[in-house]
Amino acid sequence: MDPLFNDAWPSGFAAPARYALFGGGKRVRPALCVAAYQAVAPDPQALGQVLPAAAALELVHTYSLVHDDLPAMDDDDERRGRPTVHIAYDEPTAILAGDALLTEAFRVLAVQEHWSSASKAALIGRLATAAGYHGMIGGQVADINGVQTLEDLTRLHRGKTGALIQASCWMGAVCGGADAIHLAALDAYGAAVGLAFQLADDLLDEEEDAEEGGPPSFVKLLGAEETRRRAVELCDEAIGLAQQLERPDTLTALAQFIVERKI
Amino acid sequence: MDPLFNDAWPSGFAAPARYALFGGGKRVRPALCVAAYQAVAPDPQALGQVLPAAAALELVHTYSLVHDDLPAMDDDDERRGRPTVHIAYDEPTAILAGDALLTEAFRVLAVQEHWSSASKAALIGRLATAAGYHGMIGGQVADINGVQTLEDLTRLHRGKTGALIQASCWMGAVCGGADAIHLAALDAYGAAVGLAFQLADDLLDEEEDAEEGGPPSFVKLLGAEETRRRAVELCDEAIGLAQQLERPDTLTALAQFIVERKI
Repeated sequence: MDPLFNDAWPSGFAAPARYALFGGGKRVRPALCVAAYQAVAPDPQALGQVLPAAAALELVHTYSLVHDDLPAMDDDDERRGRPTVHIAYDEPTAILAGDALLTEAFRVLAVQEHWSSASKAALIGRLATAAGYHGMIGGQVADINGVQTLEDLTRLHRGKTGALIQASCWMGAVCGGADAIHLAALDAYGAAVGLAFQLADDLLDEEEDAEEGGPPSFVKLLGAEETRRRAVELCDEAIGLAQQLERPDTLTALAQFIVERKI
Repeated sequence: MDPLFNDAWPSGFAAPARYALFGGGKRVRPALCVAAYQAVAPDPQALGQVLPAAAALELVHTYSLVHDDLPAMDDDDERRGRPTVHIAYDEPTAILAGDALLTEAFRVLAVQEHWSSASKAALIGRLATAAGYHGMIGGQVADINGVQTLEDLTRLHRGKTGALIQASCWMGAVCGGADAIHLAALDAYGAAVGLAFQLADDLLDEEEDAEEGGPPSFVKLLGAEETRRRAVELCDEAIGLAQQLERPDTLTALAQFIVERKI
């Protein structure tokens, strides 16, 4: 994955974006995308058919982190043990690097030669829907505005975290040429693990959440035990859906990792 | 053009993006896109074939203004006689509104039913290339880094302003089903008016630029007379290219407006 090279501008231009992109991370979205592809594709080893989609998902996720870390947003100085982009460079550079990462995600999908034009349009439409007001940005706006009820919190996280995770599975399935039934199964799998991912996140942050104040979380609204029960239930649901597919093993392992992870 | 309605989230979510989008402006990019379409299309009145592209271009242009105006960037409190988005709302809201406008541009192109999938992929690829490191963002980074020579300044503006203007003409031509020769003529027309636009901008800012200090401009490097001569030359070149097309009149008028405008 090297979408940000081959640049007529001095190569230093893309350095802040590359700094953000190649700074580690779990790569959950690309992993889900590739796993969904391999679960249904006629040739699961032909990864050239899916890697551009996996790259686009990580580009969108990384842009969202760069902008989330900005002083006006979460004001985080460190991510993954390294200075955030606006610390390592400066704030204008971080804003533009985030913008460039988002733009590059759509360019990567649009210029692939492996895919039919119909697939490209479908993949781009889904990624943009998942990333925008109907998905990730919608969830971020809801987060800024503040929510109170469990229903609102669930909707917030289905947007902020869930939409892109769900799109990862759907996009992998499209790259693999899934039929309608398998596509629906992978979409539902993505919805389940997307919400489970956030429940697990809240459990990891349990100690912080137990403090007074701070934003609402599933642990605060439901308690740790009920949050864990719901995460396991969603994981089981996802594994059940994966069983409908020809090669469910990686999806099963990823669903378990998402709920049981300690990072 | 109403891409930001029909929202499962409270409609207030998209209000900051709509505030930026519907705050006036010359709409040069949509106008060029529609004029390029009408110059070549078999049915120049069938505007449904081109308006989504025109909308996407204005969405990208508007996002770039919202982010440019941020305190960390140009720190502008007013645009077009109204408070900028981060003043009317707040800074996180402005960052997210810009992100959403950019995302929405690609979604609008991806979901159109009027176009073939091949056209969608081509339009999205060109828009992303024009908006990213190879175009607009590349020019913005060069601007932040500072340039000294006429060659660097020209390249900066071919990226920062020119790439999206040139893409506007190319995208309109593609929507109109232009053949390769007419597409090349409209692409070259767009390159000429894109640079002429910036020369004219520098002439409009002539008094400021005459002051000591400040960033380099064409007027500073070439003088007002030579800058005006080059703008007129580019305008003439653009008009010559437009003459190759079946209906050149609007393109001719727009080239003249771009050079002679007082706004």
